[in-house]
Parts: sequence; C-alpha cells; structure tokens
Amino acid sequence: MSEQGTGVNKWKCTIAYDGSAYAGFQRQPNAVTIQGQLETVLERMHRHPVQVVGSGRTDAGVHARGQVVHFESNLSLDEKAWIKALNTQLPADIRILHAEKVPAAFHARHDVRSKQYRYFIYHAPVHSPFVRHYSWHVPVPLDITRMQEAGCVLEGTHDFTAFSSAKTEIKDKVRTIERLEVQVHSPASGSNSSQTMLADLPVQVTTHKESTEGKLITVICTGTGFLYNMVRIIVGTLIEVGKGKKSPKEVERALRERDRDLAGPTAPPQGLFLWDVFYE
Amino acid sequence: MSEQGTGVNKWKCTIAYDGSAYAGFQRQPNAVTIQGQLETVLERMHRHPVQVVGSGRTDAGVHARGQVVHFESNLSLDEKAWIKALNTQLPADIRILHAEKVPAAFHARHDVRSKQYRYFIYHAPVHSPFVRHYSWHVPVPLDITRMQEAGCVLEGTHDFTAFSSAKTEIKDKVRTIERLEVQVHSPASGSNSSQTMLADLPVQVTTHKESTEGKLITVICTGTGFLYNMVRIIVGTLIEVGKGKKSPKEVERALRERDRDLAGPTAPPQGLFLWDVFYE
Repeated sequence: MSEQGTGVNKWKCTIAYDGSAYAGFQRQPNAVTIQGQLETVLERMHRHPVQVVGSGRTDAGVHARGQVVHFESNLSLDEKAWIKALNTQLPADIRILHAEKVPAAFHARHDVRSKQYRYFIYHAPVHSPFVRHYSWHVPVPLDITRMQEAGCVLEGTHDFTAFSSAKTEIKDKVRTIERLEVQVHSPASGSNSSQTMLADLPVQVTTHKESTEGKLITVICTGTGFLYNMVRIIVGTLIEVGKGKKSPKEVERALRERDRDLAGPTAPPQGLFLWDVFYE
Repeated sequence: MSEQGTGVNKWKCTIAYDGSAYAGFQRQPNAVTIQGQLETVLERMHRHPVQVVGSGRTDAGVHARGQVVHFESNLSLDEKAWIKALNTQLPADIRILHAEKVPAAFHARHDVRSKQYRYFIYHAPVHSPFVRHYSWHVPVPLDITRMQEAGCVLEGTHDFTAFSSAKTEIKDKVRTIERLEVQVHSPASGSNSSQTMLADLPVQVTTHKESTEGKLITVICTGTGFLYNMVRIIVGTLIEVGKGKKSPKEVERALRERDRDLAGPTAPPQGLFLWDVFYE
C-alpha cells in the first residue's frame, strides 16, 4: 500500500449499499448520503477533497447491488488495496465490491449504456421480519398474469410522462425500456424443499410450513434511461393491475395520454435496488 | 373479533423474529426481550398479565424463523384474529406466522421432540450489506469437505461438555444430534443465472459479477436438545476445521475428553436462526 504521487489515475468502483439509513446517493448539506460517505473517506485518505461521480442518483431508502462510481486519485494503490482501504473506513452498510483502473476518458454517468433495477415484493399475509427493509409487503391477492401483461405494454420506447414524478424538470420524457419482467418465486412449490436453495436463505424465513404460503415477486426493469421515480411508479401501477383496480389497457392509456393521474401510486423505496449498470 | 369470557383456551403460536435489537428471548428486568414484547401486548389485550412460554430461549442477537410459544387466554378470538391482533401491536421485527388452539395439556417447552437450528456463513472477500445482520462473514479460504467430515463426528448421542458454555449449570450434558449438515450454495455455479432463484434475492446482492465469488454456507443442526451456546460453539469449531487450524480428529478428541478448550470459539450470534421446533 505505497502512497506515491505518481500521477493521477481514474478509478471505477462497483458498490453495494443498504440505503435504509441514507438520504439517497447524492451529496446534500445536512444529510447523510452515500456519496457523502465515500467522499469523506476519500478526503481523509488524500488530505484534499475528491469528487465521486455516480452512474446516477438513488432516492432515500433505495438500495444498490451494483452502483458504479468513478473518482480520480494520485495514490498508487492497486485494486485489492483500494477495496480494502475503502471498506475498512466505510460503514458496514456500504461495501466496495470491485475496483479497477480505467482510462481517463471513462465517465460513470455519461458512458452508461443501460441500467437494471429490481423491485422486490413480499407477497404473503404476514411480512418477513428479515426482508422488511428490502421489500414491499403486499398481503392482498394479486393476478400475476395481468401484471405481466401490463409489464409488456411498458416495454419499448415511449413517452413516460405518466410514469414520472411531477417534480421532474427534464423536458424530454421519452425513454426505452428494453425489458420489463415480473417473476414469481414460490418457495413452497419447490420440487424438494431440501433441494431448493431458496429454503435456506434468511429471506425465506417467514415461509414457514405452518404459515400461509408466501411468494417473492421480482420486477426486473432494464432500460437506457429512467425518469425520477419511474421504476417505483411502474411498480405501484403494476400492483394496482394485480389487485384488479386497473387493467393493462388502462396502463396503455396512461402511457398514451401522458397522464400521471392515470398511473398508480409510487411504490415505497425499500423494495428497490439499482441492480446493475452496463457500459459499452 | 368478539371478546367474551367463555372459558380459558390454550394457544400455540409460531413466531419469526429478527433478534438484532433484543437481549434475547427470555424476559429480563431492564432489557427489551421477545418474551417481554409478547407479554406486554397480551397484557394490554387482556388487562391482566399473561405468561408466554417459549420452546426455549434464544440469545441476544439470535433470530428465529419458527420459534413456538404457548399462552392461555379467555378471549374468544379465532386463529386469524389472533394473528392480526398480535401483529398489529407487535414491532415489525417480531411476526406471528401462525396461531392455533391446542389442548390444555400442550406445553411449548416440555413437549418438544426436536429442534432445528441453521447458521449462515457469508463466505466471500467482501461482506454483503444486506445480510450483515443475518450471517457471519468469513473472508478466508475454507475446506468445506473437512468441515463436513467434522460435522459427521458430532452426529449422534454424545456428552457435549466441550461444546457448551462453562456458564451452564446443567449436569447432564449428553445430547443427541440427529443431523448436522454443512451445505454450500454458490450462486455463480448455477446452471443458468437467470434461472437461478438465488440470483434474484437481496441476500445475493454482493455476488455481483464483478465481485469475487461469494458463497453462502449453511450449517443445519437438528437435535433433541441443546446446551447453552452449543450450536454457536459447534459452528466456531467447524470454521476452525475449515481454516485448517483443527482436524476432524481433534474434534473427536474434544468430544471424548469433554474439554471446552479443545473446541473452537463461539460463533457470533447474528448468523444463528432457531429454524423449526418439532412436536409429536
């Protein structure tokens, strides 16, 4: 871990974080943020401020499995040393998974080709105490097939005005969703419970044999760009469809008429994960 | 939800809890406990103290997927109403999964036939922020086959003095482990990542493709009775074996010589779950 001033290098890091305790990714005055934590550690290491650039923001309470950031440094640490040095100083709810030296031209936000978000819904009469910070508890019956139909309506290139927060100042609301999938994992339906890997995971724990059956519903959304609150409004809308309060046709109409009021409510933040960021 | 004084019924409840915030299951003065939380809610409902009897204690920080308790009540609620009434008043980290009326002779502790504990080890260079409260992070290489061999040594009926806390006052330390299994789930080795259910779960999140490979190791221990700290000392010992610091033969010797010093350290509480309690 030699620290020599041998020129400036650009570093790309892949980061996982539990967003529960944070006011979101982006640095803000008087609030604890992911970017703020990273920059505090980097400033301590460099004895001067170091700017961290993320692939994009995540909201308060939203998590990341694979957020990507870049920063510049004159410290000559190798990849393993960066991972170790940062993880030692960061709180346990933010972990550096990977670090690599990248060309000076790399930009964590500008160079994004697409992103994947995943939203987890815990669909059982009683919530699991173990995934309460990582999923949305929906205890009422849901028609998954209708949710999948509505999901298909949203795939492709559309004006997503109806599925974005009114707070957005961006004018162009045309975005492309490459893939929108609604998956259901039912632990109880496993061929052999001792063979089902799910049964061994803490997240499965409330699907106890004596409990009424629980399911984990995952909404996987991959796209080239996302508007403010877009994934959470999509999920809130899909749940309305699943409950029978909206039809896939009405989702199509919301999209066509660009009417936020025709879409569903914004799903809560704790079920959302920035899952992966893809570059060229 | 009629509340009539039509005699006293005995109720059996299956409970899941996240033990992170608690000083253990058993009621203690000046400490927040699972039993204390349950009794507080029941006293509020009954306007008189109601004793909760659990299948056994769990230590501070230890979780339960399927703890079982019983209590007596003169309220005439049905099963669904009990689940709803208790969950509404309990904190989100304690959930009633199931309630059923049982014969007056049922006893949650005396009638236990066997119990299953599961201990989760997160085996990867970097810990997952999402399972940090539900697993033990072991970042060093482990020989799983040797751990499995050592596990076999412990199966059967033995004097487990070497694997119990010196604090125990119980004289008879002979117990029977019906099953001791060391399982490994490697998400990266799944046949098809999009088919692997594991890949969709929050607990999987640090096994990001750019991260060095991570594994979840589960120690499943089923037995008719357990001594204080027994599972955690067994897991601590198995990890010593996995690291190469002890051999399966030395585990056999610890057992035979009933010497606590020959066994390994006590594994931390957060990886341990009381998974299931079995009755006749």
